[in-house]
Amino acid sequence: MKFEELPLTEAEVIKLKQLCLEARSLSYSPYSKFRVGCTLVTSEGEFISGANIENASYGGSICAERSTICKAVNERKYKFKVIAISSDSQEAISPCGICRQFIREFGKEIPILMFGQEGNTHELMNLEELLPKSFGPSWLGVPEA
Amino acid sequence: MKFEELPLTEAEVIKLKQLCLEARSLSYSPYSKFRVGCTLVTSEGEFISGANIENASYGGSICAERSTICKAVNERKYKFKVIAISSDSQEAISPCGICRQFIREFGKEIPILMFGQEGNTHELMNLEELLPKSFGPSWLGVPEA
Amino acid sequence: MKFEELPLTEAEVIKLKQLCLEARSLSYSPYSKFRVGCTLVTSEGEFISGANIENASYGGSICAERSTICKAVNERKYKFKVIAISSDSQEAISPCGICRQFIREFGKEIPILMFGQEGNTHELMNLEELLPKSFGPSWLGVPEA
Amino acid sequence: MKFEELPLTEAEVIKLKQLCLEARSLSYSPYSKFRVGCTLVTSEGEFISGANIENASYGGSICAERSTICKAVNERKYKFKVIAISSDSQEAISPCGICRQFIREFGKEIPILMFGQEGNTHELMNLEELLPKSFGPSWLGVPEA
Ligand SMILES: [Zn+2]
Ligand SMILES: [Zn+2]
Ligand SMILES: [Zn+2]
Ligand SMILES: [Zn+2]
Repeated sequence: MKFEELPLTEAEVIKLKQLCLEARSLSYSPYSKFRVGCTLVTSEGEFISGANIENASYGGSICAERSTICKAVNERKYKFKVIAISSDSQEAISPCGICRQFIREFGKEIPILMFGQEGNTHELMNLEELLPKSFGPSWLGVPEA
Repeated sequence: MKFEELPLTEAEVIKLKQLCLEARSLSYSPYSKFRVGCTLVTSEGEFISGANIENASYGGSICAERSTICKAVNERKYKFKVIAISSDSQEAISPCGICRQFIREFGKEIPILMFGQEGNTHELMNLEELLPKSFGPSWLGVPEA
Repeated sequence: MKFEELPLTEAEVIKLKQLCLEARSLSYSPYSKFRVGCTLVTSEGEFISGANIENASYGGSICAERSTICKAVNERKYKFKVIAISSDSQEAISPCGICRQFIREFGKEIPILMFGQEGNTHELMNLEELLPKSFGPSWLGVPEA
Repeated sequence: MKFEELPLTEAEVIKLKQLCLEARSLSYSPYSKFRVGCTLVTSEGEFISGANIENASYGGSICAERSTICKAVNERKYKFKVIAISSDSQEAISPCGICRQFIREFGKEIPILMFGQEGNTHELMNLEELLPKSFGPSWLGVPEA
């Protein structure tokens, strides 16, 4: 997926980057000390941010992407123009498989924007590229979002 | 735990019940068709609602309690006066073990209010009663919330 | 629950403790470095051991109890006389809420034996005591195991 | 990935298909009624089978792939020649994102064989193809398996 295909204005891209980097400050990650921030843009153009929330039982941890989508869905937002993530790593971090699966429920085409190096670099792929041949709602007879 | 011990006014309890029952409408549960709503009250008296968000990969599903706490934490709220849940069941539903563990990260004493029968009945227990001898942050050398 | 109520001979208890402590060596825990071992005894008297298996995506981690039950169920064992756990902590560790919920699927009365201090101390509670008012199969119309 | 690249003899492939289809009978899936079987072949040529194990709390469910790997790891097997899955669907089912992430911990190159239509058809991809740009151990400073 190419950057120009993102349905955002230049100003929106700048805002997205800033909010996404700031979102890391929301992280509760006393176990991994690996902060991840996420900002998504809804189909109506609203920006919603979140971060990873870890748990003493590691398996109970919820990553930034899922945590942020929970916030969005609880505000009745189900359609996303883009989901952006950032971390303290120099390289662009990518969503884990659990989050790719969680995002998949809301669409195959969602662009995922991954920031590296304080936002100076990035990678862009859509969900289908990150989770090819995905297992989704239609497998269980549920309509796709 | 006794109902009178809840740090809420009578008006707040009425509001909590109403919001919690309404929160079920936020549910995305095409697989189980089991809607669960959750409303929590933050230490500052703010009400935050959410619901369960299921996934084609069942293991990716996030219950109402966790989904709502994600929303709260992403708004920098970490202290909760009470967490209330409701479902379409006549009997008061209780949080699953995963959610008890997730709530545990934010305190042992948090009251959990479980509504049944459209809010006409309820049960009230705190987290410690629902998850005795819990495994929490201090086991891994992390300060308790 | 009292120790004498365990449906095990003295020799079986000794064997259980030894296997459970040894099971820690099966642990794959490069992230938490917190090894947990588990040994369960099936209704036919077979001993099955396992340990925690962590994941770079913390939420993908599977604790010792669930990991061991996976092994048992994949060998068509669904009924357990006792599930024992140990760690490198001096105090007896207890199952996290996720594991309590996973165990719940196979019965409310299952005794959970928690070893501390290299097996010199222990605590014993059944699942119902560890997860009171549990959310189980019958809530969704599925017969209890 | 091409079928001929699988490090298996023809006889092993036949055995793998048979065991993988049979593994569905191990499934505990009273909620989705969607049986999934899994058979993996270890680096020493051992065949290990398992199936999905669901939970009343949907998020507690463990898919066939993870359940089977738990069995393998608890038998000290960490290297896999191939992981095969089957379901009752006519089309070849693919692993969910959670399982792709769990498999990832044990290698990027692992071939995943997906059977359809009672084993008469199949698809073959390796983990890297199913989970490109994966988030793995090295991101957290842990050596790759
Ligand atoms: Zn993730
Ligand atoms: Zn729950
Ligand atoms: Zn656990
Ligand atoms: Zn899976």
